[in-house]
Amino acid sequence: MKPLILITNDDGVTAKGLRALDEIAIEFGDVVVMAPVSNASGTSHSITSARPLRVRHVKHTEGLDVYACDGTPVDCVKLAVEYFCPRPPDLVLSGINHGSNSSINVLYSGTMGAVIEATALGFNAIGFSLLHHSPDADFSQATHYIRHIIATTLQKGLPSDISLNVNIPRLPADQIKGIRVCHEARAKWLDSFERRTDPQGQPYWWLTGKFQCPDPPQSSDEWALANGYISIVPIHPDFTHYPSIETLKKTFTT
Amino acid sequence: MKPLILITNDDGVTAKGLRALDEIAIEFGDVVVMAPVSNASGTSHSITSARPLRVRHVKHTEGLDVYACDGTPVDCVKLAVEYFCPRPPDLVLSGINHGSNSSINVLYSGTMGAVIEATALGFNAIGFSLLHHSPDADFSQATHYIRHIIATTLQKGLPSDISLNVNIPRLPADQIKGIRVCHEARAKWLDSFERRTDPQGQPYWWLTGKFQCPDPPQSSDEWALANGYISIVPIHPDFTHYPSIETLKKTFTT
Repeated sequence: MKPLILITNDDGVTAKGLRALDEIAIEFGDVVVMAPVSNASGTSHSITSARPLRVRHVKHTEGLDVYACDGTPVDCVKLAVEYFCPRPPDLVLSGINHGSNSSINVLYSGTMGAVIEATALGFNAIGFSLLHHSPDADFSQATHYIRHIIATTLQKGLPSDISLNVNIPRLPADQIKGIRVCHEARAKWLDSFERRTDPQGQPYWWLTGKFQCPDPPQSSDEWALANGYISIVPIHPDFTHYPSIETLKKTFTT
Repeated sequence: MKPLILITNDDGVTAKGLRALDEIAIEFGDVVVMAPVSNASGTSHSITSARPLRVRHVKHTEGLDVYACDGTPVDCVKLAVEYFCPRPPDLVLSGINHGSNSSINVLYSGTMGAVIEATALGFNAIGFSLLHHSPDADFSQATHYIRHIIATTLQKGLPSDISLNVNIPRLPADQIKGIRVCHEARAKWLDSFERRTDPQGQPYWWLTGKFQCPDPPQSSDEWALANGYISIVPIHPDFTHYPSIETLKKTFTT
């Protein structure tokens, strides 16, 4: 039986990046897409519990079913695995995101929330993001590498509980230098909100922010991307900082 | 100058658990509360970018200002730090959550999203959760321990980039055995959605799920909580799984 690949994203079911990813995935197996009805960027690992979810079957062609769901990317993964995949997926993909999910951006990303959820459920999972926010971004330059990463993962699997956060620099294909496996760079978003005043004189605040990542080390994703490489960061769904356990035992145990 | 403590939560500005926490915090310094207008459970690390935010000043008493914001817990932390705290906070607290944020629940939790954001911004931060979902839960039984954890953190600080995920068992004060510093237990939520049919015969899906955590080790939070201890898990905002970097270099580098 062909591999089954489940795909979601956070830019919504009509996003160009999602289409680019399903066109590559179909080369490797049967594909089920379940993606948010509309843009769900910045929804992280959120889930919908205050209202029920609806699903629309958008498209069926040979080996491909596309569903739109009015939940978050994490909802999409949970619901698709339980009700819409004909068998357990061999691989869960998310993206291709319109914009970076490198460094600390993984925290906010719905694209990567879906990937982490898939990993927690026991599936191999990869998130792909292109460093280009435009809805009309060109996703073709990295097709060769995306194909390589999917093929390798299907063939060799991933370490237990590990998924991949793949970011692609905004460069023509012949200027991408290759792949680097790295760690998240330490970074911050500063000046997060812009205060404005409405026509009634009342204040409101728009999310904005400046990405601060001074001098990322050569071992980090930000360095790789700034120097023409595709970055792969292995991530896992356990937030525990193990080295601190012994230190904090001395501090807090009563 | 007194320490400044910023508090948020995900149950909303009127939640009993938030009140319980600000009553303890005020013993230690000046307190600014900025919490979501309404319930924001399950919003994880999500941020609001599609619309601007509004803020309402709910309450001012000696040493305490309470604001309601129509964003997520992460929005509350960012916005409060930038516009509503009179100086940088010495400590950011979140909770007390009505319900567990142990084990894998940290992924979904808006309470813990706020804590991780505060850590990423460079502040000491602690999330408190009680294993009792009821809006009328009794939060008094752990006051002694919460006071101890806040006092110790203000006095000694936390390791760099580390925050605390504190969960409190649902037990009378005299049955709580003490504090254990531990790691997240591995767990899954299965049977995530319940399919129903509306009066028009159309399907919809409600989030539900069964928490599966068989045989948690004695070193884990689930074991501690099941055995009458308060659990403290040190967490950090870097999802990289460092031990896998070398393995994956061999697998993926082109």
